[in-house]
Amino acid sequence: MSLACLIHGPLDLRLLDQAPPALGPTDVLLRLGAGGICGSDLHYYQHGRVGAFALREPLVPGHEASGVVVGLGSDVSRVKLGDRVAINPSHPCGRCDYCASGRGNLCRKMFFLGSASVFPHAQGMFRETFVMGERQLTTITESHISLGEIACAEPLSIGLHGINRAGPVLGETVLITGGGTIGCMSVLAARLAGAAKVIVCDINDRSLDMARTVGADQVIRSDQVPQAELADLAEVCIEAAGSPAALATCLVAARRGGRIVQVGTLPPEVPFPANSVMARELDYRGAFRAHLEFDWAVQAIRSRRVDVRPLISAQLPLARSQEAFELAADRSRSTKVQLITE
Amino acid sequence: MSLACLIHGPLDLRLLDQAPPALGPTDVLLRLGAGGICGSDLHYYQHGRVGAFALREPLVPGHEASGVVVGLGSDVSRVKLGDRVAINPSHPCGRCDYCASGRGNLCRKMFFLGSASVFPHAQGMFRETFVMGERQLTTITESHISLGEIACAEPLSIGLHGINRAGPVLGETVLITGGGTIGCMSVLAARLAGAAKVIVCDINDRSLDMARTVGADQVIRSDQVPQAELADLAEVCIEAAGSPAALATCLVAARRGGRIVQVGTLPPEVPFPANSVMARELDYRGAFRAHLEFDWAVQAIRSRRVDVRPLISAQLPLARSQEAFELAADRSRSTKVQLITE
Amino acid sequence: MSLACLIHGPLDLRLLDQAPPALGPTDVLLRLGAGGICGSDLHYYQHGRVGAFALREPLVPGHEASGVVVGLGSDVSRVKLGDRVAINPSHPCGRCDYCASGRGNLCRKMFFLGSASVFPHAQGMFRETFVMGERQLTTITESHISLGEIACAEPLSIGLHGINRAGPVLGETVLITGGGTIGCMSVLAARLAGAAKVIVCDINDRSLDMARTVGADQVIRSDQVPQAELADLAEVCIEAAGSPAALATCLVAARRGGRIVQVGTLPPEVPFPANSVMARELDYRGAFRAHLEFDWAVQAIRSRRVDVRPLISAQLPLARSQEAFELAADRSRSTKVQLITE
Amino acid sequence: MSLACLIHGPLDLRLLDQAPPALGPTDVLLRLGAGGICGSDLHYYQHGRVGAFALREPLVPGHEASGVVVGLGSDVSRVKLGDRVAINPSHPCGRCDYCASGRGNLCRKMFFLGSASVFPHAQGMFRETFVMGERQLTTITESHISLGEIACAEPLSIGLHGINRAGPVLGETVLITGGGTIGCMSVLAARLAGAAKVIVCDINDRSLDMARTVGADQVIRSDQVPQAELADLAEVCIEAAGSPAALATCLVAARRGGRIVQVGTLPPEVPFPANSVMARELDYRGAFRAHLEFDWAVQAIRSRRVDVRPLISAQLPLARSQEAFELAADRSRSTKVQLITE
Repeated sequence: MSLACLIHGPLDLRLLDQAPPALGPTDVLLRLGAGGICGSDLHYYQHGRVGAFALREPLVPGHEASGVVVGLGSDVSRVKLGDRVAINPSHPCGRCDYCASGRGNLCRKMFFLGSASVFPHAQGMFRETFVMGERQLTTITESHISLGEIACAEPLSIGLHGINRAGPVLGETVLITGGGTIGCMSVLAARLAGAAKVIVCDINDRSLDMARTVGADQVIRSDQVPQAELADLAEVCIEAAGSPAALATCLVAARRGGRIVQVGTLPPEVPFPANSVMARELDYRGAFRAHLEFDWAVQAIRSRRVDVRPLISAQLPLARSQEAFELAADRSRSTKVQLITE
Repeated sequence: MSLACLIHGPLDLRLLDQAPPALGPTDVLLRLGAGGICGSDLHYYQHGRVGAFALREPLVPGHEASGVVVGLGSDVSRVKLGDRVAINPSHPCGRCDYCASGRGNLCRKMFFLGSASVFPHAQGMFRETFVMGERQLTTITESHISLGEIACAEPLSIGLHGINRAGPVLGETVLITGGGTIGCMSVLAARLAGAAKVIVCDINDRSLDMARTVGADQVIRSDQVPQAELADLAEVCIEAAGSPAALATCLVAARRGGRIVQVGTLPPEVPFPANSVMARELDYRGAFRAHLEFDWAVQAIRSRRVDVRPLISAQLPLARSQEAFELAADRSRSTKVQLITE
Repeated sequence: MSLACLIHGPLDLRLLDQAPPALGPTDVLLRLGAGGICGSDLHYYQHGRVGAFALREPLVPGHEASGVVVGLGSDVSRVKLGDRVAINPSHPCGRCDYCASGRGNLCRKMFFLGSASVFPHAQGMFRETFVMGERQLTTITESHISLGEIACAEPLSIGLHGINRAGPVLGETVLITGGGTIGCMSVLAARLAGAAKVIVCDINDRSLDMARTVGADQVIRSDQVPQAELADLAEVCIEAAGSPAALATCLVAARRGGRIVQVGTLPPEVPFPANSVMARELDYRGAFRAHLEFDWAVQAIRSRRVDVRPLISAQLPLARSQEAFELAADRSRSTKVQLITE
Repeated sequence: MSLACLIHGPLDLRLLDQAPPALGPTDVLLRLGAGGICGSDLHYYQHGRVGAFALREPLVPGHEASGVVVGLGSDVSRVKLGDRVAINPSHPCGRCDYCASGRGNLCRKMFFLGSASVFPHAQGMFRETFVMGERQLTTITESHISLGEIACAEPLSIGLHGINRAGPVLGETVLITGGGTIGCMSVLAARLAGAAKVIVCDINDRSLDMARTVGADQVIRSDQVPQAELADLAEVCIEAAGSPAALATCLVAARRGGRIVQVGTLPPEVPFPANSVMARELDYRGAFRAHLEFDWAVQAIRSRRVDVRPLISAQLPLARSQEAFELAADRSRSTKVQLITE
């Protein structure tokens, strides 16, 4: 039997023992290495939904995880017992028009782990053991890279996708709103892509300190600075705070002709200076999950070209999931909180 | 002496005789061929301003014009007396960072004819004669192309710039909100660029008829159709109506991963589904004036690869400017109204 | 029993009766509508190979075909008996890195009909009846569009892919070497994409006449014009003749900063002005088969936005395959030759 | 009087005293800080020409230089006496079609210092003092950045332009042929732009050591490895060796769909697998000088985000120019050799 963390509804998180499912020929049985709690996991826990995706049955959350191979289907060839693996939670269909045009993250038949976007829900990875098709796995042979770091590949891929959506940033200034996990992953991504300068805005000093730690050149308490001082600071703005005020900062800070990428989750409707977008010829671009960037993130982490270690605030065993969720919800005490098996 | 149309303030349009200025060595004296009244000309006339640009002195409006060469500076070599010319109203500096990066329409020192964006204002072309640097002129040798058509190069360049900002549309469906001049120029541009299907939405039957005339495959009375029927219609939407309701249509009609280009002028702030832009990974892009597209427009008009003739509703002599402005303001009676010399 | 045209080796084309294979649940039995003979079909016939792909068993050639539905697998839902369909001969895997990045035409596990690139060979469509997965089919409901036109979707997709690889051509001059089928499809594609001017070079008057018929603005007997007159003619050159001399023309005719797309098949090694590519900052780009362009081609043909009818020189019944191949090989007598069922 | 190094013809380098020219209102008098000897300077010295550009009068070479401000025109506002400055040797016109489209490096009226591409020649910066328009200067306030490093902005801009021409390399493998100055600048540029892995090929161990020092992950003696081992190594290849054998390596090493950028200078004609470019859908792209990348290079050097110090092999006073040129020509003893004032 295997311990699993399930969300039954708002603030109703339960730990249950599940029997492991049978393995198909190309399936792999994994023990959880580390599993990061993401903002969307918190939304399911706090509100029973993320945007339009509402729980219709109990959901195992968790889509940022590493694992250790503990069982093999009959035809598995990519991994072997004991391998430490990065796990790609995204399963695009490979057949629809979005997949065919290289935008698998928009797949019409997407199966994304730990999500209520489909029914039955795509059960996630916050459990002691779980089954995964071998296609989703990349073995990490570098023994000095921890299971916690490996589990950061997914959130780093979000940062990379945001930067990718911005287009080339080589030589440019990038301003990022929000110094939480995704904001910091955006800092790492912007630096990796050669941004000349990275500025982070937040209203929380701990977040700004973390942003500096992972490579921000300048940090701004955006609630303490007149908006005029933020004008025209950057060619590219990444909105990773998920607040209308942060979006407003981006729209002021973007230079004429600049690009603003929406990575954070916002309310359904916000006031918006659409005419300024026209007259200043801005681009306002959404960024949803990630696609090929997952493999880039794995590569960047295993080579330590990107160092995610400072972002991992705490690791708690699965049995303390509720405590972990509450810690993850408190930005003044944590950046990334991960669940582990003992 | 030369008759000129000046706007002194809201609804204060005057006709005056002006002495022609002296010609510099590379200057050309032109007689107005035809000069189209644009939405921004109407804004100056009706409100004394266009967005942030308010009149601070009397302004000769007019930036969509053709001319006939009636005088030559000492060093002029590009044109000769009697030439019929297209006139590019845009004077980017060629030196600033925007110019250097190929975005001259965003030039920091832009001098754009008929605009209060600089002071002293950039006096426009609604006058019997005026002076222009030879660099701005392209001689049209095709005698069957009228001065009215040539004057449409500037508004066609706006349509082309909007499509250009959308990125390649070959094989795609393009939905355009607004069947006025810019909407119809967008139809022509979308067809020229190989869109598989062009749909136009408006709330005015005359505009929809005109859109069909210039090549729309389908027209929709967007006020008479439930919004749900508009969902996911197009990869690209061009907002050329300048109304929040039209923008809302675009945001519904754009397919996931689609692009919406803002060409029309909107109020400073509109309600906006920013989270949907993220979750559906849309691109919302501003389009401001035009740049290299002016030359493409001249070429398309002179070869009749694009036929703008149906859009020219009326031509009135300069002496009847006020009447012309009022006709231009009435979408139920006109698309493009042009001023001419007799 | 069903007649099939097989190539056993160089100049060894045989007609045989084949038993139709069984239908899987999503398979469709088709009767050949029209099947165009392509340059690669001719290569198999004349040389027993196309570049690196040599015959290792008898091959049914044919990848440009339309069909009529005459049988349905148990689960087929996209088509019904009697439907006239366009047939996409390209089967990318949907899983490899090329597929995931939107370049399905480069798929590592490509199965492309009528090709010896895999073994057993991917048997093609020059046969009375054949089986196809329903995913490959698009029903053409427009009764005025002939089966011959529908069969041109594949070669048109090649022209569109070449133009697509060139990047946007709106407002530009495109020079195309070769006025054969692919050259003419490139003319149609360039015009569709809004090229300001299309020039075609060839050494054969019939081909130049055909190029003019389908929309070339200018044609040049490149063997009768000094190379200097060809210099700097075009922003984009499409090499669709497959001859080193034609490539040399492209390299001269491309303006500084221009793009040259290699669509035709060349010898393994040619002399090349690589230093000029550097000093003039040219782009020389390969174009291999097509991907999403197939659907655009179907759409363009069924709407007659592109009219391929002039290119169809002759249609012969399958029983006269050898005669048809020989006619197809003679550029002075034919452009596109198609096989049909009676 | 001011010492200047002039090339009169092949192997005819002379030192002369020149009177400094008068300063125009926006001109600045500079004392040479450091001036790197580039491959093109060597070509003028060794052969009296670079490709098509032959000496028609004595030429002061030198386009990679830093300076110190020692005199000011009456209207200069960007710099002050004593400033240490980076100097952009490129003077595009700002008016031609290439400038307008953001490709100033291809300007029709380019004036590029130290070059015989125009007549009278554009005299360069290998002299004690020289005059420069203030627009070309960027003051470097960071006192810990040496004049030698600042002078590397121009060659770094070449590396950045090559990578820029390759398109985004984030997450990709980049193979570079040649570990000389431009090859190493390409390594630095590729790393800055986020390449996952950088491989350098050369036939000279000193060059490979240097490539490793500046960030290559792997180095290959391409003359000692069977070509088959080089196949499919990289998504992007930068040809920075300027040899046909190196180009051949790139064409083998590029993965299907990959990009090859020609930065080095090659013979006028080389054998080339053009058909493989088609069948493997490669892009072969020229890269000529640099444009906006100069400012990026200045920024990267002054922030030490890029560390060019290992590349500076030697600095010799202007009076020893001939010795410096000979050292620069010997790859077994030097990478970048700079001239300085004492």
